[in-house]
Amino acid sequence: MKLLFVGDVVGRAGRQILARQLDRLVDRHAIDFVVVNGENAAGGFGLTLEVVREFRQLGVQVITSGNHIWDKKEFLPQLDRCNDVLRPANYPPGAPGHGFGLYETAAGIRVGVLNLEGRVFMSNLDCPFRCADACLEQMAGRADLILVDFHAEATSEKMALAHYLDGRVAALIGTHTHVPTADEQILPAGTAYQTDAGMTGSRDSVIGIAKDIAVERFVTQLPARFEVAKRQPVLCATLFDLDEDRGLARGIERIFCREEA
Amino acid sequence: MKLLFVGDVVGRAGRQILARQLDRLVDRHAIDFVVVNGENAAGGFGLTLEVVREFRQLGVQVITSGNHIWDKKEFLPQLDRCNDVLRPANYPPGAPGHGFGLYETAAGIRVGVLNLEGRVFMSNLDCPFRCADACLEQMAGRADLILVDFHAEATSEKMALAHYLDGRVAALIGTHTHVPTADEQILPAGTAYQTDAGMTGSRDSVIGIAKDIAVERFVTQLPARFEVAKRQPVLCATLFDLDEDRGLARGIERIFCREEA
Amino acid sequence: MKLLFVGDVVGRAGRQILARQLDRLVDRHAIDFVVVNGENAAGGFGLTLEVVREFRQLGVQVITSGNHIWDKKEFLPQLDRCNDVLRPANYPPGAPGHGFGLYETAAGIRVGVLNLEGRVFMSNLDCPFRCADACLEQMAGRADLILVDFHAEATSEKMALAHYLDGRVAALIGTHTHVPTADEQILPAGTAYQTDAGMTGSRDSVIGIAKDIAVERFVTQLPARFEVAKRQPVLCATLFDLDEDRGLARGIERIFCREEA
Amino acid sequence: MKLLFVGDVVGRAGRQILARQLDRLVDRHAIDFVVVNGENAAGGFGLTLEVVREFRQLGVQVITSGNHIWDKKEFLPQLDRCNDVLRPANYPPGAPGHGFGLYETAAGIRVGVLNLEGRVFMSNLDCPFRCADACLEQMAGRADLILVDFHAEATSEKMALAHYLDGRVAALIGTHTHVPTADEQILPAGTAYQTDAGMTGSRDSVIGIAKDIAVERFVTQLPARFEVAKRQPVLCATLFDLDEDRGLARGIERIFCREEA
Ligand SMILES: [Fe+2]
Ligand SMILES: [Fe+2]
Ligand SMILES: [Fe+2]
Ligand SMILES: [Fe+2]
Ligand SMILES: [Fe+2]
Ligand SMILES: [Fe+2]
Ligand SMILES: [Fe+2]
Ligand SMILES: [Fe+2]
Repeated sequence: MKLLFVGDVVGRAGRQILARQLDRLVDRHAIDFVVVNGENAAGGFGLTLEVVREFRQLGVQVITSGNHIWDKKEFLPQLDRCNDVLRPANYPPGAPGHGFGLYETAAGIRVGVLNLEGRVFMSNLDCPFRCADACLEQMAGRADLILVDFHAEATSEKMALAHYLDGRVAALIGTHTHVPTADEQILPAGTAYQTDAGMTGSRDSVIGIAKDIAVERFVTQLPARFEVAKRQPVLCATLFDLDEDRGLARGIERIFCREEA
Repeated sequence: MKLLFVGDVVGRAGRQILARQLDRLVDRHAIDFVVVNGENAAGGFGLTLEVVREFRQLGVQVITSGNHIWDKKEFLPQLDRCNDVLRPANYPPGAPGHGFGLYETAAGIRVGVLNLEGRVFMSNLDCPFRCADACLEQMAGRADLILVDFHAEATSEKMALAHYLDGRVAALIGTHTHVPTADEQILPAGTAYQTDAGMTGSRDSVIGIAKDIAVERFVTQLPARFEVAKRQPVLCATLFDLDEDRGLARGIERIFCREEA
Repeated sequence: MKLLFVGDVVGRAGRQILARQLDRLVDRHAIDFVVVNGENAAGGFGLTLEVVREFRQLGVQVITSGNHIWDKKEFLPQLDRCNDVLRPANYPPGAPGHGFGLYETAAGIRVGVLNLEGRVFMSNLDCPFRCADACLEQMAGRADLILVDFHAEATSEKMALAHYLDGRVAALIGTHTHVPTADEQILPAGTAYQTDAGMTGSRDSVIGIAKDIAVERFVTQLPARFEVAKRQPVLCATLFDLDEDRGLARGIERIFCREEA
Repeated sequence: MKLLFVGDVVGRAGRQILARQLDRLVDRHAIDFVVVNGENAAGGFGLTLEVVREFRQLGVQVITSGNHIWDKKEFLPQLDRCNDVLRPANYPPGAPGHGFGLYETAAGIRVGVLNLEGRVFMSNLDCPFRCADACLEQMAGRADLILVDFHAEATSEKMALAHYLDGRVAALIGTHTHVPTADEQILPAGTAYQTDAGMTGSRDSVIGIAKDIAVERFVTQLPARFEVAKRQPVLCATLFDLDEDRGLARGIERIFCREEA
């Protein structure tokens, strides 16, 4: 089966190119299942119910997230209600929402999706390695294939978790840095891996943010309100060819869509 | 002119694949100038004079570095003597060594190379933005082309510096994360940019380190001595097509060499 | 002469105990000059012009600050206008406001006050050690006494700067951790030193913040809006006995005021 | 009963003043139980079996530790054997050694000691709040009194844990910053608290390290081998007056010993 994972959608620029391109991608690659990281989809910070509905109408089956999922207070109660929205599983017990979910493709293939967050240079969360073990145990026998979205900063932590889970999940895709990496590969035991899927949003920017403001912050070290950039929208995604019989990967391919000005 | 930049060479595995592949690459792409990041070339930690000589014999014109350049105490006195070895320019005044250098290709094109280090999630160095300004002023009129190796962790800091220098240098290449990014591009004002060149060393690893040890460190949070990995050596590099008349870029291309087992 | 330094005033609880206690302290200890760290004085975040005026009316001669001085956007233009309000000197050139100032006591003793911010676990600022050198040079011959407020997190960075400036300034007082340290001392070359002056605000709190909210943030790792605590206000300050002829210290004493419920 | 807690003993200077002063302190204050943080006791880095024996002979009943306990590889196997040596309990399951222990005074009072480590600005450990809950449950009914050594950097994390455990343990003492705080107090529900006990070692130093080297590291941002300082040894400790019937505190007092040159 073919699974498309779309990297962090940032603001309106990101949502709009997703809306314009997703159908075409699904058709062209005969995609069975679409997962999108939406942690920056609502104005760069978190999600709203409207954005979730917009994504559903586009045919997105699962929305994963990361550290920015908590940015919109009014959305948090929705986290328990929306089974198709995930937040990293390794927040402390009691956090609203779900860290993994079990879904099905139109053809009846059972897909498990697990969302985790890194700790290096990030928050003081529960261990993503042990949390992965625990979640996989709960998903055992209930999914033909498992995809992990590991939302993390450090390349070392991402590669370490990928090796740790190699052979136990079909694919591990990194998110959070907003830059796609060119290291897509099948690991020795059969798990597809890429350090980061990249971002879906304005490319003429600093990771999706208006570039002048971002530069100014670095130069002055003073706070400045971030603004989502708009120009030159691009879509970064990763296409996985997964083998539902073995629960492993056959192929992994980077997808990059840009539109002409 | 064609400039090849080779990403962080890690240990013997990295040096060996560089030795086996560099000539071929230079011939095939008619490369005029070779720059290699060598901060991890000696056993994963820093440089030795032997390694520097090895690189020179391979035809490497300039060795850039980063935070690991200080790892081998006995090498530090060499930093002042070797004009072809650079350490990040934004260490405090008085640090041994040079932060930028002026070189020449066989055809007489004057190439300036500037090495900088990021601060986000790294050390408390001088501002790389203002340091870049100061170094560029010193290089003004003395180079036809300038390449910047920005050794940094955060994608945002790298992209911000690239936009800050866009149009003022021919190319800015990121290093340090050891994972090549798939965002090579020419920025609006003519500077070639890629967030990270990736690593030259064992791919079946965690950023060049033996994967079992790296995983164990994350899982136990206990110290463990790192060991350079050996299997499946790869070479990650970036090929720049630079216009010496304008001091800007015409093209940028990722290079990835692997060898069959 | 006697100089009183009052530790970070946090919100209304802090301002109110300062208003109730300052006159009494000044009388009792025959204080000649009062410096207050006000970075948290306006609702826990930054300053307003009203708060500045309130402090002036209480007899505060200089207000120092730290990382929170930028919290209230509308106050930033005031930084250039208020000579009695300082922000850390080691922000990049061009930041609004002043990093040091030259003042005078009623008896004509010339007092220099220098504000610096640490980098360890904080922002990527200019080197506070070199910035101190530069500022002291500018103040040379223009002050009988110099006080440094070093707003920093790590005890090591604070003690290192104190030793670096020992004999060159009359006193170095740390701020930012909101907990007074019991290590007040005269360093070998004559500079009075204390790692942190502590906080002026609610003691039944987590560094001035409502304790339930603070605990919840640590336990859940989810964002929660901070609220300034109110109960059990205390005033933490340090009283310096300084020798204006030598520009060094004769004595240093911790002051702690609490009021009965 | 009277419990003496001695702050981080740093190197020989620290061990020697402890050896010279402990008997006198125990006699003078009629101390029933002595706990020492020993994470820096062996040359500044960790422990050795010899140092442990030295401490036992001085009458130390329990040695707590922190992030430096792992520094001496050869000592790690001892962690499982020495019931009187603790390492922070919130390292991942499987770490060598014990995170808490149950002891007895000469008079038969059952004392529980729990060691925890903070996460803010430190390692990615398990949640110290939930770990405290779990350990206290295991100690329930088996100790008349519980002391917690919370080895942490941030004052906010220390105060938050203290409030979280207020009324459930007799005392929570902070360590790690090497500077004693002047905020010793009995919290509303009866737990004695001090943010940091301070250090036992050379005072003419930067947190126990030779001051010239420490200053140089900050100024140059280059690595330099730390050296334990020797001059002006001091002992920082905290004396707790605990009520074994209620498991709470009656009093808390800072102890500071210096010796004449
Ligand atoms: Fe994101
Ligand atoms: Fe993120
Ligand atoms: Fe490297
Ligand atoms: Fe590096
Ligand atoms: Fe403050
Ligand atoms: Fe602060
Ligand atoms: Fe320590
Ligand atoms: Fe420590």
